[in-house]
Amino acid sequence: MRIAVCQVSARVGERAKNGERLEAVIREAASGGIEAAGSGGANVIVIPELANTGYSFTSREELEEFAEIAELAESSTLTAWHQLARELDIVLVGGFAERGLDGDFYNSSAIVDATGVRAVYRKAHLWDAEKLIFAQGNDLPPVVDTAFGRIGLMICYDIEFPEWVREVSLRGADLLCCPVNWPRALHPASEKPSEVIKVQALASMNRIFIAIADRALADRGQEWSGASIIVDPDGFPLTTLAPGSDNIFYADVDLTLARDKDINAHNNVLADRRTDLYQHIEGLV
Amino acid sequence: MRIAVCQVSARVGERAKNGERLEAVIREAASGGIEAAGSGGANVIVIPELANTGYSFTSREELEEFAEIAELAESSTLTAWHQLARELDIVLVGGFAERGLDGDFYNSSAIVDATGVRAVYRKAHLWDAEKLIFAQGNDLPPVVDTAFGRIGLMICYDIEFPEWVREVSLRGADLLCCPVNWPRALHPASEKPSEVIKVQALASMNRIFIAIADRALADRGQEWSGASIIVDPDGFPLTTLAPGSDNIFYADVDLTLARDKDINAHNNVLADRRTDLYQHIEGLV
Repeated sequence: MRIAVCQVSARVGERAKNGERLEAVIREAASGGIEAAGSGGANVIVIPELANTGYSFTSREELEEFAEIAELAESSTLTAWHQLARELDIVLVGGFAERGLDGDFYNSSAIVDATGVRAVYRKAHLWDAEKLIFAQGNDLPPVVDTAFGRIGLMICYDIEFPEWVREVSLRGADLLCCPVNWPRALHPASEKPSEVIKVQALASMNRIFIAIADRALADRGQEWSGASIIVDPDGFPLTTLAPGSDNIFYADVDLTLARDKDINAHNNVLADRRTDLYQHIEGLV
Repeated sequence: MRIAVCQVSARVGERAKNGERLEAVIREAASGGIEAAGSGGANVIVIPELANTGYSFTSREELEEFAEIAELAESSTLTAWHQLARELDIVLVGGFAERGLDGDFYNSSAIVDATGVRAVYRKAHLWDAEKLIFAQGNDLPPVVDTAFGRIGLMICYDIEFPEWVREVSLRGADLLCCPVNWPRALHPASEKPSEVIKVQALASMNRIFIAIADRALADRGQEWSGASIIVDPDGFPLTTLAPGSDNIFYADVDLTLARDKDINAHNNVLADRRTDLYQHIEGLV
């Protein structure tokens, strides 16, 4: 099984161009690309948050132009992704701007495969100025049984909440796919971006694979980290960080490794949890 | 405010020698030591898990010789630590083998200051063969208001459970002190030990300082990581890893920085938690 995470730049306002670029990248990932470790293309492909619209919206009015109802019949984005997933026989995970039937806008992502749209998830932990234009999701993240393994889904800042990652792990996700747009931030030169450290830690704490598709370059002056990465259940990277440009990163994985939560003869990262005590923690839930 | 974490080797069976070595190290840390960044000694000093006994017990029978009731009047270990804390005006955090009044043995740690024993905590998440000789603790980790800040306490494997770190953070800990004995494990040469990655992630997720005092060298053939570290609320190290030998690591910190959980104008790492949704997570507590 091969995973690909696609680090693709985008610009708000250049939707057609963004869409063409995305399609080309998805086709390249599905065919394997020159950077693939072996032969054959990716089976699961992750693209960034708000993949085809760009991220840096400045108002709710602007979202009117981009947001789509999350139904195949209503969304040219989901329709295009479904056609690609069917043609290429892939699971495609990516973000789009959703117009809710309630009139609110959501920062959403979908899991799409050959059979259709398998899940739509609305970001529950909104980042910064998103709070001014998007409504927050009110559902738990999905875990979908696909032809290539059990895939959990969340979006960007969501993954910085260990409760949320624990949730998909407790429900049996082998692989957590996470479209992101990580803003570039200062960090010591000898260190990785803070978000990457968190992803590595959470993969190990839960013994799951995590695949992050980040943005590259900039969008309306907002610079992105370009820190796309695929991490194994030991919490170590299967890919090398390559910020600063568009790129596709591949990893060949055996997702069934994520179903063994034992770390020695006496310890299991999920069974060792002291839920008898956690229930007494004030404010945990 | 200066924190010191003391990476001290020990051997089971050499209790007097271990105790003398510990006292010398604590005195050195309290005086500042040649490696201190500035002048003056440490105010908060952390020593490893099972600090004066060594770790690699092979039976409950062996614990009979080492375990002590956790009262000043009953424990030569706690009495010695209290005398040092009073003489040196420090907060001392370290691990010892506790004999419970219930007849069980516990892998415990104490926070001791000039006024006495401020808290005793029994490890709640037991590691590997500890399950064969120790009973698990059944209390939440303590958070103690000291002269130098609010200090939370847990032990080794405990800190790999994000629920547990969240707990001390929700209760207002500025600094989480964690005596550990991290077994040496393989990891990619370009990566840090997995436990260090987790500590960095959890410090950032909760915006707290974390101070880890690890073992160095080996004990009955068990090699230790020697990965003592002090991490800031951004999740970045204030000290440099130096495995392979005894050492004292210092950091000068402003613990009040941990009281600001804001990360931008709209986000706060604790207030952003979706407890309205976490309560629906099956198995979270």
